[in-house]
Amino acid sequence: MIREGQSRLYPIEFNAVNFTDTFWAPRIKLVREQTIPFQYEQCQETGRIDALRLDWKPGQEPVPHIFWESDVAKWLEAASYSLATHPDLELDALVDQVVALLAGAQQPDGYLNVYFTVVEPGRRWTDLRDAHELYCAGHLIEAGVAHFQATGKRQLLDVVRRYADHIATVFGPAPGQKRGYCGHEEIELALVKLYRTTGDERYLRQSQYFVDERGQQPFYFEQEAEQRGTPGFFATTFPERDQERVKYREYNQSHQPVREQTQVVGHSVRAMYLYCAMADLAREVGDETLAQACERLWQHLTTRRMYLTGGIGSSSGNEGFTSDYDLPNESAYAETCAAVGLVFWAHRMLHLECDGRYTDVLERALYNGVLSGISLDGKKFFYVNPLASSGDAHRYEWFGCACCPPNIARLLSSLGQYVYSQNDSELVVHLYASGRAQLQLGAQAVTVQQATNYPWNGAVQIAIEALAEPTTFNFKLRIPGWCSEAVLRVNGSAVDVTATLDKGYVSIERSWQAGDVIELELPMAVTRVYAHPAVKADQGCVALQRGPIVYCLEAVDNTAFPLHELELPVTQPLQATFQPDLLDGVVTLHGSALAENAADWDGQLYTMQRPRLQETPITAIPYYAWDNRQPGAMRVWIREHQA
Amino acid sequence: MIREGQSRLYPIEFNAVNFTDTFWAPRIKLVREQTIPFQYEQCQETGRIDALRLDWKPGQEPVPHIFWESDVAKWLEAASYSLATHPDLELDALVDQVVALLAGAQQPDGYLNVYFTVVEPGRRWTDLRDAHELYCAGHLIEAGVAHFQATGKRQLLDVVRRYADHIATVFGPAPGQKRGYCGHEEIELALVKLYRTTGDERYLRQSQYFVDERGQQPFYFEQEAEQRGTPGFFATTFPERDQERVKYREYNQSHQPVREQTQVVGHSVRAMYLYCAMADLAREVGDETLAQACERLWQHLTTRRMYLTGGIGSSSGNEGFTSDYDLPNESAYAETCAAVGLVFWAHRMLHLECDGRYTDVLERALYNGVLSGISLDGKKFFYVNPLASSGDAHRYEWFGCACCPPNIARLLSSLGQYVYSQNDSELVVHLYASGRAQLQLGAQAVTVQQATNYPWNGAVQIAIEALAEPTTFNFKLRIPGWCSEAVLRVNGSAVDVTATLDKGYVSIERSWQAGDVIELELPMAVTRVYAHPAVKADQGCVALQRGPIVYCLEAVDNTAFPLHELELPVTQPLQATFQPDLLDGVVTLHGSALAENAADWDGQLYTMQRPRLQETPITAIPYYAWDNRQPGAMRVWIREHQA
Repeated sequence: MIREGQSRLYPIEFNAVNFTDTFWAPRIKLVREQTIPFQYEQCQETGRIDALRLDWKPGQEPVPHIFWESDVAKWLEAASYSLATHPDLELDALVDQVVALLAGAQQPDGYLNVYFTVVEPGRRWTDLRDAHELYCAGHLIEAGVAHFQATGKRQLLDVVRRYADHIATVFGPAPGQKRGYCGHEEIELALVKLYRTTGDERYLRQSQYFVDERGQQPFYFEQEAEQRGTPGFFATTFPERDQERVKYREYNQSHQPVREQTQVVGHSVRAMYLYCAMADLAREVGDETLAQACERLWQHLTTRRMYLTGGIGSSSGNEGFTSDYDLPNESAYAETCAAVGLVFWAHRMLHLECDGRYTDVLERALYNGVLSGISLDGKKFFYVNPLASSGDAHRYEWFGCACCPPNIARLLSSLGQYVYSQNDSELVVHLYASGRAQLQLGAQAVTVQQATNYPWNGAVQIAIEALAEPTTFNFKLRIPGWCSEAVLRVNGSAVDVTATLDKGYVSIERSWQAGDVIELELPMAVTRVYAHPAVKADQGCVALQRGPIVYCLEAVDNTAFPLHELELPVTQPLQATFQPDLLDGVVTLHGSALAENAADWDGQLYTMQRPRLQETPITAIPYYAWDNRQPGAMRVWIREHQA
Repeated sequence: MIREGQSRLYPIEFNAVNFTDTFWAPRIKLVREQTIPFQYEQCQETGRIDALRLDWKPGQEPVPHIFWESDVAKWLEAASYSLATHPDLELDALVDQVVALLAGAQQPDGYLNVYFTVVEPGRRWTDLRDAHELYCAGHLIEAGVAHFQATGKRQLLDVVRRYADHIATVFGPAPGQKRGYCGHEEIELALVKLYRTTGDERYLRQSQYFVDERGQQPFYFEQEAEQRGTPGFFATTFPERDQERVKYREYNQSHQPVREQTQVVGHSVRAMYLYCAMADLAREVGDETLAQACERLWQHLTTRRMYLTGGIGSSSGNEGFTSDYDLPNESAYAETCAAVGLVFWAHRMLHLECDGRYTDVLERALYNGVLSGISLDGKKFFYVNPLASSGDAHRYEWFGCACCPPNIARLLSSLGQYVYSQNDSELVVHLYASGRAQLQLGAQAVTVQQATNYPWNGAVQIAIEALAEPTTFNFKLRIPGWCSEAVLRVNGSAVDVTATLDKGYVSIERSWQAGDVIELELPMAVTRVYAHPAVKADQGCVALQRGPIVYCLEAVDNTAFPLHELELPVTQPLQATFQPDLLDGVVTLHGSALAENAADWDGQLYTMQRPRLQETPITAIPYYAWDNRQPGAMRVWIREHQA
């Protein structure tokens, strides 16, 4: 399934796309102006920045935490992306300061971890399963790569290379090396990025080693625990991790060699980062066995264990996967980071094979399960994204384990990379959003301009704004899975979509020239979605979707009855209305539902009389925008009334 | 609301009723032949009996537990009731042995508690909140009363009187006394029984003291903890009990003086036993304020916090009540003991005021939420009675905290007391079951014979078998709340039910003589029941009831589709069929349901196509009889299809 050589697609650089739309551009600006500064403040106030000075002394509060570098690194990554698309001297200087602190915290041997340098230096590399050292290293590497790409400055890249070089001496199959790998996958994908940026194959090999070694017997984490002889990092908080070691293997996907894995299991963010690395390696080394494992896991995830929002990992117990079709709504975990991770993985799968299955999931997660993670003002975050709430789930400014806020920030700051892919003879449009993209197709510089009100309207105009001379290439456009009757015109002439539609993409291969205009109409009907009968929580229920947007009912718009009492008749039409002043501008859905009249119960808890139903108007809003007004109940899945 | 003086109804003695029916008589026999011997064995094997020898030494296993006397006492109580209706020399001797052991364990001052005599003698009465001392005492007192009533033997009664006398010296408002009360109510109702049996008003006063003192400020349990200065009994297992003392007051209903309580809160068994005592005291001392509090709590419980099965206490977190209408099915706690306690309380409310509201609940709990607690072979027990199961809830032989098995045993062994009440001029029938009752109406001995196949058939014949001379009295018959069109005849002549129907009872006041026959027909239609719209878990769902029996679907009878996928059309008729060979003889319900065809999803998790539905036959069985065959899923509330 891996496309090779010339025909291989690659994403265009994130900073080659300039969003000018009303949906993403304001959000990216918000991340730049609000989220990135705010998250720096949070890192500063919580001690994450100062900890890099390595002047912590026993007894001092706060004690640096083993996760802290990862938060700083993701902030650096987001800030770097932002600098690349929007130069900002002040932010640039701030980034340089933090980079300097990181450089100063690096040990002579290349090691870079505050906790294991100042708090418990003796425990370095003794608890790979739970201590997150290689995970933090991975985020630092991603930050180093991003900083170099965005600014051309090498300082942080050099720091993380030295760290990666050190890691390569410690871990591997050679005598005297530790045959370990991280309990929280991340470094594997980071090392592939480092390889792509530096061209140094040692990093690719090190990533391969970590991925290939995972799940081999004897199980490293169990050997490590025995050799260590002392409790692991979370022995007090999560004693079951030590008591049920075999069961716990799945938590970090170390239960089997990765190529033998057929089910998505365990902690969902860990799983996503691992699968990203597997897809990266499949592509970089042409490893079909890894690609096939990815495809099996993808199928399993998307047909058994994914929420309609693209949220994944239904249980708070393991922050992860449970069993097939177990997708409870109110207790859904659906961690923001896991949806971000799913976007990352889908993007990589899409570059193994250009198939709309992947893009549909990428889009689903992006517009719903990821975007719900951040408030409209860019300052508050959901760690957990339930699909129903009694009114007690709310976004918070920061978390002790602050993985999600900077993860959204780095995704949105580099969103441009998800819009187009290309090779020398193809230009592929995955996502629709107004903006300009500048790219190089073979010898030709091309500027492409999209104009659309997506996701509120499916009319998209794509103009070739600049192209020095007429050039033949294949323009591929995604026809989203939610759209059934797309209409396509080139320079005003209709093009038969079905003739070339293949795996969710329509192809227009012709000689293109500046001024050519493609018009794509993706009719956005309000659609009712049903869940597989095995999903207990959704039986008898319907969800509403329009375009890529999943809707929900929120109490603030529907005050006449508690939300769980509403039933939507199958015959009820729903009107879509764009409301520019609501929730920064959203399309809302309107119609009538039915609700039982509690008065019929006459104070009783149970009745033998069939309940009467009365009509009541309902309004649905985009799921991502809930909990931005008065607190209250919410639900995505609404009971459907069959009569 | 309390009827006074001559008109006051009282239950006839449990052993004045001899069941000859096919429903209760075999179950009482089973309890006698299987459950009581089996529970003795369990008490013996787990060390509960031997512990009474007081020869435990530090380091020895098992360590006597603070609950143990209560299990032995409830066994003694059940065994005593059984001896009264079915003399058995062997059991009688065994009971005497245990009584002798208890007598031997009593301390010179009257104190009787193994744990605080041999394991931690220094902690006597230092943790009233959690150490269950007075609770165990209460059960011992109930056993002593039952043993005396059943056998006429005074030994255990004398033991518990001495213990009660000792307790009366320790607890009370006098200087030097502890102003405490028990964290697990039970002794209050036991002391009323002791008063009724002995006529000694001191026991009534002591019960009044405990009930009146409860919830007064300053809060005893908090003072006690401060004075003790050491952690409480369950400080390790339930640290939140000490961390959140104020919140925890509700757990044992000590948050307010009982007369101010308006909501049923906290641990459900504790609540039931308290309310029993409140109703007892209301009756014994004519205390309207207590009766009114009981009535408020009753209303709250039965209109906000009771399962259709009569199960109560929806959360395992506190083994008790949560919030109004919070009645989840699969995670329902609905402890067997709480349903037993509800029967006890309903019976007492019924003797404050003869109102079918109480009897309907008593019957509901008895035939459903209590009876589900015991397996058909009498040897396995549900502690927790969910109303839906994925297939992993099963009865067990015994529990570390073994309150439920003997609680069912003592209820069923004394079931006769719930059938009739009387005073000098009234005879009231509450429950219907074939059997003979012998009682004294004023100067007249009366023998009444019921013949019915209740609960499978609502035709009841009640004959006055023996009555020396024609006597005028009021024969009151309950018309169950589930029955809408009762037909009544006396000696073949129709009697207008509606003419005298009052609070669920029809009255026939006339001169009765031997040979008179009352025929009552209570048509048992299969009825659909709906829950109040505020009960989230049941929305869109229907439950099936026929007569007093609540039905469920069990996987073993319904194999074509997972139960949660079934929808019952509103128009679907359901046939009732008696199946003598199934589950010891039950009426099953049969009809067709609809189910979605998973094939329509074509391997996808979500679809935009409306699911097709196909017909499939369904069979429902009585809820109480589930989990007596192959393990599998179960549900009481079934989705209803409105078309």
